[in-house]
Amino acid sequence: MRQFIVSGHDVPLTSDFSLDDLAGGAGRLDVLCRCVSSAFFLSHAIREDVRTHLVLGDEFTVRFEGSELRRLNPDERSTAALIRKALEEREEAIGHMEVETSPGVYLSRRGFEPILETAAGDGTVVQLHEDGDPAVEVEPPADPVFVLSDHRDFAKGEAELLSERADERVRLGPERLHANHAITVAHNWLDTEGYAEY
Amino acid sequence: MRQFIVSGHDVPLTSDFSLDDLAGGAGRLDVLCRCVSSAFFLSHAIREDVRTHLVLGDEFTVRFEGSELRRLNPDERSTAALIRKALEEREEAIGHMEVETSPGVYLSRRGFEPILETAAGDGTVVQLHEDGDPAVEVEPPADPVFVLSDHRDFAKGEAELLSERADERVRLGPERLHANHAITVAHNWLDTEGYAEY
Repeated sequence: MRQFIVSGHDVPLTSDFSLDDLAGGAGRLDVLCRCVSSAFFLSHAIREDVRTHLVLGDEFTVRFEGSELRRLNPDERSTAALIRKALEEREEAIGHMEVETSPGVYLSRRGFEPILETAAGDGTVVQLHEDGDPAVEVEPPADPVFVLSDHRDFAKGEAELLSERADERVRLGPERLHANHAITVAHNWLDTEGYAEY
Repeated sequence: MRQFIVSGHDVPLTSDFSLDDLAGGAGRLDVLCRCVSSAFFLSHAIREDVRTHLVLGDEFTVRFEGSELRRLNPDERSTAALIRKALEEREEAIGHMEVETSPGVYLSRRGFEPILETAAGDGTVVQLHEDGDPAVEVEPPADPVFVLSDHRDFAKGEAELLSERADERVRLGPERLHANHAITVAHNWLDTEGYAEY
């Protein structure tokens, strides 16, 4: 399974935001929506063997489970609507227990650390880093966990934890990419078995 | 220069559409907006050496010029607003003459064929094709022109013209990708000089 953890730093923590202003009033929720789209969509198919965690303000996490998703569309607005629906049930998410808010979409009251710790137990944590090894020289892990940040850098604690937990440090290319583009490139690296299989 | 031509088949040809329903009432204009975002955005920068042509219903073309763009943002809605603004001036686009409708955004009354013919004169036309050569085995051209379709397949005439004009046939991976994801992968192929330079 491929996992993506995306930390959103300015995003809403309640459902009180407008789908008409995702890039402004909703604190750049558009960035996270694009990450979900990149994580799951193929042409005319969904990548079922993918799990994506959107960490909202280090407080809540929305988990998207590829094998269960039924109402995901590639546009930002409809994904934002799923996130808003999840946040409508925030009072139901008690402790670390998840609540399913749409088919394949789960909300929990968990921040970056417990999400990363759990995912790290299930797979190989890949840190995308400009000093990492060129992707073409690294054998793609079977169960990679990619950890990304939204339009902001990781918070200091997040960066430290990620450096501690990372099993691999990989560089995808010479340019710094948006998180959703990095997800697309990471998928292509995995799809091609490290640029070997087409 | 890197050029992308994206053919949109169901998109609006007038400015009479709502930014609140890009994936529905606006005929999947969301797809083209994501292509623009993938074509131009780096983290905290715009790719200046990129030109992107959105062909609308084989009738109008909106050209985005990386070196001149001033008001482009990565979200779908704001890009759609630039396209709508371009279409507001459709009566000003006479013959093949372009009209600049925002900084770096131009509208012309041209369909797929003249746009492809002009771009082919300036660069190497790359057809993304499942029977193409694996990208890793192809030397990236200096001035590639990638030609893509929205959520629909190319129309018959478009496909024939593209096959005729294509200088290279390239396969980006084993999976069929959305057009915006293909643009991201193509950029990574070029950025890394064919997965050689990181």
